Amino acid sequence: MRISQLAAATEVPVATIKYYLREKLLHEGVLTSATQARYDDSHVRRLKLIRALIGTAGLSVSATREVLLGLENPRESGHDLLGIAHHAVARTAPDDVDLSSAQALLDHWGWGAETCDRDTQAALARALHGLSEAGFEAPTALLDRYAAAMQDIAAADVESVPTDSPEAAMRHVVLGTLLMEPVLLAMRRLAQQSASFRRFGETVPPERP
Amino acid sequence: MRISQLAAATEVPVATIKYYLREKLLHEGVLTSATQARYDDSHVRRLKLIRALIGTAGLSVSATREVLLGLENPRESGHDLLGIAHHAVARTAPDDVDLSSAQALLDHWGWGAETCDRDTQAALARALHGLSEAGFEAPTALLDRYAAAMQDIAAADVESVPTDSPEAAMRHVVLGTLLMEPVLLAMRRLAQQSASFRRFGETVPPERP
Repeated sequence: MRISQLAAATEVPVATIKYYLREKLLHEGVLTSATQARYDDSHVRRLKLIRALIGTAGLSVSATREVLLGLENPRESGHDLLGIAHHAVARTAPDDVDLSSAQALLDHWGWGAETCDRDTQAALARALHGLSEAGFEAPTALLDRYAAAMQDIAAADVESVPTDSPEAAMRHVVLGTLLMEPVLLAMRRLAQQSASFRRFGETVPPERP
Repeated sequence: MRISQLAAATEVPVATIKYYLREKLLHEGVLTSATQARYDDSHVRRLKLIRALIGTAGLSVSATREVLLGLENPRESGHDLLGIAHHAVARTAPDDVDLSSAQALLDHWGWGAETCDRDTQAALARALHGLSEAGFEAPTALLDRYAAAMQDIAAADVESVPTDSPEAAMRHVVLGTLLMEPVLLAMRRLAQQSASFRRFGETVPPERP
């Protein structure tokens, strides 16, 4: 198919497709003249994947490139699979970042700080710092309930990794980590609305004392 | 304090503070001359909150303005409290968006589609569409486990809302929804790393058949 047909098939504008070609996110088509190329189903699949990573998961172009490279080059170690996905979404933590608050929680939950990536620990420390900067003190009991729920989710995630091929495992881990995040956040908001309706219904909250 | 001291106290650059003043996110100081103003602790607290909403929760300037306005004008209804927070993070769904996949799941989980905001349902539908576009089929059993975990989290969220004043309730709901999202996502990744280490350890995944 021509680039205009590829655009129609994927609902990605021609100018955006050309940008992805220049940025090497999308592989070149087969040249049929000096200015035209022919594209196939592999381009359709790749464009849909790029759109999901950038549009749904909200990754940058460079993080998307890193994930696509990871999908093409599956790692040897099962545990390393997660590294590709987590590295794409984690900012590199500066050397002097204070991880003590995050590590104290990891120890408390028995998750083993030594098996956890430093940049992801820093993401937790930064997020907790953001809460306290905003004057929101999260009680340990609330964080413990979150941790129990997240442990269930992570167990389901890890159990569902296919073991028939490294390629399938890699694809599952990377996409299941990145693309599931907006699903989970939308689910939390809907569950909150449902729980809030049950608690508050149509009643008015009490007046200030 | 002067603007330079306000910048030092909050680690927000003077140019950024001036931008927030122009955008009316931050209230003006008291003028001490034609070109100088004096700021106080209320500016420090507000700047820390703005930084948390923009930096930690990743909100845009206009979504941040909406949240700040919401915090200053608490709603009458307990159930409406969530609206401010959810509206700030949800994109407005187009009229023709297909909500059937999201509503089927809400019914299946017993969350009551009629009590859930349309834009948030659309966020779930869009996130599920992103998964399937990328060729990732999420089994219903996996989504069900996610839903059970998110229901626990939402119950903890809603139970922890203080009822002593509408202001305190509003602040808790808005910040607890928005600023907790990066905490939860970091916790999921750390729990995955911990679970993955327990499942895969140092072993190499099986060869392709």
